[in-house]
Amino acid sequence: MTETLPLQDLVALVRPQLERLNREILQDLAPGHREMLPLVDHVGGFRGKQLRPVLTFLAGMAVRGATHGGGLGDDVVTVAKVVELLHTATLVHDDVLDSASVRRRIPTVNQMAGVEVAVLLGDYIYAKAFHMAVQLPDPTAARWLAETVRVICQGEITQVLHRFDFQWTEPRYFQVIADKTASLYAAACRLGGHYSGGSEGRLRALEEYGLELGIAFQIVDDCLDLDGDERVVGKSLGTDLAKGKITLPLLYLLQQGPDLAERVRSLLGKSEAEGLRRLRAELPLEHAIAYAMQEAQRRIAKAQASLSVLPPGPARDALHQLAGYVLTRRL
Amino acid sequence: MTETLPLQDLVALVRPQLERLNREILQDLAPGHREMLPLVDHVGGFRGKQLRPVLTFLAGMAVRGATHGGGLGDDVVTVAKVVELLHTATLVHDDVLDSASVRRRIPTVNQMAGVEVAVLLGDYIYAKAFHMAVQLPDPTAARWLAETVRVICQGEITQVLHRFDFQWTEPRYFQVIADKTASLYAAACRLGGHYSGGSEGRLRALEEYGLELGIAFQIVDDCLDLDGDERVVGKSLGTDLAKGKITLPLLYLLQQGPDLAERVRSLLGKSEAEGLRRLRAELPLEHAIAYAMQEAQRRIAKAQASLSVLPPGPARDALHQLAGYVLTRRL
Repeated sequence: MTETLPLQDLVALVRPQLERLNREILQDLAPGHREMLPLVDHVGGFRGKQLRPVLTFLAGMAVRGATHGGGLGDDVVTVAKVVELLHTATLVHDDVLDSASVRRRIPTVNQMAGVEVAVLLGDYIYAKAFHMAVQLPDPTAARWLAETVRVICQGEITQVLHRFDFQWTEPRYFQVIADKTASLYAAACRLGGHYSGGSEGRLRALEEYGLELGIAFQIVDDCLDLDGDERVVGKSLGTDLAKGKITLPLLYLLQQGPDLAERVRSLLGKSEAEGLRRLRAELPLEHAIAYAMQEAQRRIAKAQASLSVLPPGPARDALHQLAGYVLTRRL
Repeated sequence: MTETLPLQDLVALVRPQLERLNREILQDLAPGHREMLPLVDHVGGFRGKQLRPVLTFLAGMAVRGATHGGGLGDDVVTVAKVVELLHTATLVHDDVLDSASVRRRIPTVNQMAGVEVAVLLGDYIYAKAFHMAVQLPDPTAARWLAETVRVICQGEITQVLHRFDFQWTEPRYFQVIADKTASLYAAACRLGGHYSGGSEGRLRALEEYGLELGIAFQIVDDCLDLDGDERVVGKSLGTDLAKGKITLPLLYLLQQGPDLAERVRSLLGKSEAEGLRRLRAELPLEHAIAYAMQEAQRRIAKAQASLSVLPPGPARDALHQLAGYVLTRRL
C-alpha cells in the first residue's frame, strides 16, 4: 500500500484556494437579517477536514495536469463552495435525526437553538447552495448536484427504513452508502474536472475515483463508530448500534452462524455504552473490522487505479495519496 | 367588495392544466427505490387548495389576455409543479416543527413514519423540485425559486427566534409573513407570467399581486388559528398561542393598554385548549380579528388594483375574484 502523508501536506497544493473558500463561504451565507448571523457563524465552526472542496480543487488541477492551483477558474471555486454548503446542510439535518448534541467538539445547532431552527437552517443552507449553483452560466453543476441531493436523501431514507432489518444484505448496504455518502464525493470530483474543461473520459475517471473513495470513507466511518476512540473521533460512538443501523462489520458478524447472529441481534437497540461494551467483550469485533477494512482497501485501490487516465503531476499524486489517507484516518 | 365565487368555479378556467399537474407530479416524485413509494403517495394525499399552481396558470394566461389555458406552454406547467413541490416540502417540514399529527385529515409524515423520515422526505422533495427547475432552458425559475426558498427559511427562522418577544412590532410581523408565505405566492404569479412571455411591467404587477394576496392569506390564516372552527379548518387550532407566535390579532390586543397586554402575555405558552378558551372568554377577540381582517382587506384591494396593467379577460377576472376568495375562506 502507498505510504500516506498527513492530510495537511496533501492539502498544501490547494491551500490558497481553500483559504479563499473559507473567507468567502461565510459571507455568501450571510443572511439579510442580522439576527441569523450567530447561527451562520456557529455552523462555520463545524469546519472539518473539508475533503470535498479539496477534491474539487485537485480534480480541477488534475484534468489539466496543472502543477499549482493558481489556474483554477472562479467557477471551480463556486462549485467547491456549493459542495461544501450542501455537505454542511446534510450535517445540520443529520444532527437533528441523530439528536446529536456535539459535532467537532462544539454544540450542534439543534442543541444550541432547538430542533426547529436546525431543520430550517439546514433548509436555508440547501437553498443558498442551490442559489449559488444556478448563478453559474453552465448549468451542469446545478443539475448534477440537485440530483445528488435527491440521491443522498433517498439513501438516508432507505437506511432509516431498514433499521433492525436482519434481512439486510451487503449489496444493499453498498448501495445505501454509495447514495448517502459517496455520491457527493463523486460529484465533487467530477464537477471540479468539468469546470476545468476535462474530457468525458477523465470526468468519468474522476467520478469513479470519488465514488470508490466515498464508499471507503463511509466504511471506515462505520468501523470507527464501533472501534474508534471517542476522544480522538470527537463525537459519540456506538450510535449505529443503538439506532439499529446494520453496517458492514455487523453484517459480517451476522453471517458467522446463528449463535453470533443472535448475540448481535440482542445488542442492537441497547444504549451506546452497553452496546459497545458488549460488542467489544462478547464478539470477535477485530475480525469484523478487518473484514470491513479489507473491503475499504479494495475500494481505495480501485479509486487509485481509476486515476491512471489522468495526466501525471502533483495533483494526480495528491489524489492518489489522499485516497490512502482515508484508510488510516482515526477521526 | 367584490362578490366571490366558490374556489372551484374560479379554478375551472385552468382545470385541464391542474389535472395534468396532478397526474404528473406523483410520477415526477417517484423514487428509484420502490420502498419510498408509500411515502410519496402519502404526501400526494395532502393535496390542498393548490392555490399556487392555479395562480401560476392564471398568471400565464393573464399576461397574454388568453381566454383559455390551452395555450400555456410546458414550461409554465413545470414551474407550477416546482412551486407546488416546494410548498409541499415546506409543509412536511412545518409539520415536524409543529409536531403536528394531522394535516388535511390524514396523518402527517412525522406521525406516520417518524421525524427522521419526515426531515429527509422534505429534503428529498426540495431536491427533486430544484432538479426539475434546473432542467428548464431558461434559468429564471431556478434562480428565483432558490432565492425564494432561502427567504422563506429566513422568515421562518426569524419567527421562531421571536416567539414570546413582546417587543415584536407590526412592521416585523409583516416582513416575516411576506418572507415565509407571500414570497412563494409572488414567485408563483411572476414566474407564470415570465414563462408566458410577459413584459417586465406586467411581471412586476403579478409579483405585487401575489405578494399582497400572500400577506392577506397569512393574516387570514393567523385569524383562523384563533377564531376558526376546528372541524372546518381540518387541523388543530390555537397553536400560535401555544407556541408564543405573536400574530396580528395578538399584536392588536397587546396595544390595548397594560391590562389587556398582561392578559395576553399570561395566556401565551398555555396549552392550545386553555389558551383559546381564555382568549375567547377574557379578551375582545372579535375586535382583534376585525382589526386584522381590515388589514387583510387592504392588502387584497392592493392586490386587485395591481391587476389593472394586465389586459382584460377571463384570467384577469379570475385572479381578481380569487383574491376576494382569500378573505372569505374558512379553511
